[in-house]
Amino acid sequence: MSQEEKKDETTVTQFLDAVAGGSATPGGGSVSALAGSLGAALVEMVVNLTLGKKGLEAHEAGLKKILEEANSHRQSLIATIEKDITAYQEVMNAYLLPRASEEEKKTRKEAIQKSLKKAADPPLFTAVTSLKVLKLCQEVIAKGNPNAISDAAVGALLAHAALYGGVFNVLVNLSALEDKHFVEKMKKELRRLEDEGTRIKEQIMAKVGEKINSK
Amino acid sequence: MSQEEKKDETTVTQFLDAVAGGSATPGGGSVSALAGSLGAALVEMVVNLTLGKKGLEAHEAGLKKILEEANSHRQSLIATIEKDITAYQEVMNAYLLPRASEEEKKTRKEAIQKSLKKAADPPLFTAVTSLKVLKLCQEVIAKGNPNAISDAAVGALLAHAALYGGVFNVLVNLSALEDKHFVEKMKKELRRLEDEGTRIKEQIMAKVGEKINSK
Repeated sequence: MSQEEKKDETTVTQFLDAVAGGSATPGGGSVSALAGSLGAALVEMVVNLTLGKKGLEAHEAGLKKILEEANSHRQSLIATIEKDITAYQEVMNAYLLPRASEEEKKTRKEAIQKSLKKAADPPLFTAVTSLKVLKLCQEVIAKGNPNAISDAAVGALLAHAALYGGVFNVLVNLSALEDKHFVEKMKKELRRLEDEGTRIKEQIMAKVGEKINSK
Repeated sequence: MSQEEKKDETTVTQFLDAVAGGSATPGGGSVSALAGSLGAALVEMVVNLTLGKKGLEAHEAGLKKILEEANSHRQSLIATIEKDITAYQEVMNAYLLPRASEEEKKTRKEAIQKSLKKAADPPLFTAVTSLKVLKLCQEVIAKGNPNAISDAAVGALLAHAALYGGVFNVLVNLSALEDKHFVEKMKKELRRLEDEGTRIKEQIMAKVGEKINSK
């Protein structure tokens, strides 16, 4: 059975058990990716509850594009659950390399640095993609079925949590990295993602509060 | 196959497909409950990565109690996924009741009001329980394995999102309720949950930022 098939057959309960257990994976990185994909699924839901509904035809073309994008983000975020696990295992493997001789020490150190840099990719992808999902939530709140407002709102909450979860999971690895240029560049990018995400989330929450209170 | 067994066998992919699809359930209410249970699972993970570890014995008894509580919240939140679906379907069924005669109109209206009140229970439970999970996150950040700080942080993000998701899902139903005393009481309770949740989340984020930066 391929890794892909195995993942596809994981039940919700099994996934939760695997998170709760005493191994380091799947952990916060994988859960963040899942949270982002749940946000994307809620965007799709709102679009599907809007398309073809009487009185809500105005944005059909735009909504179909949102549906496609959200579906693509959902799939890539789901794939990130497994990528995060693999990247973390590579870091662990690097730390387990022998360090008896000077040469071994050097090889091990280089392997650790390389694996740590690579381990930033999945959570960074989660943060970047969840910001895109958050923007789609904002669009469906403006253009989608008003009866699905709470679904879009929960999508935004999950996408925002996923963005921050991705950021935290990059940050914890940066402290062990020696390439200060890489670290500074990454920190700057993470701050940009956080700032933009928080700004959009606050706009969304204000809009949702307004719409729910006027119901 | 009982409903309980069916739920246990749902794969992650199937659940996401069901959310994304064009039916009103599972929606934001169920996703919020799942987000809360993911937060609880991450609390369990941090405890399991702490118990038995050298140098981290100080809080063993307290951590075991946290583990039990988090596991219980995880199970009850998972059960809420299905309860939210059932409650929503009862609201839909009430709206579908016949309304030809005055008597039918009266019966239908009473059934709608009753089902709407009942539909507040699952998301309110999600909000209340996710606040408890958030408090457990704060405890494991103080007492748990510092290497699992990002896992506890993601747990807090998910629990906070679940709390707000629960609140939104109660709020959207309140507007159609005629029992103003019930509505006011509920709104007050929701505000209390939001305020306490946000206060604790902000404390957690400050502490996590501090711990990650000092690594």
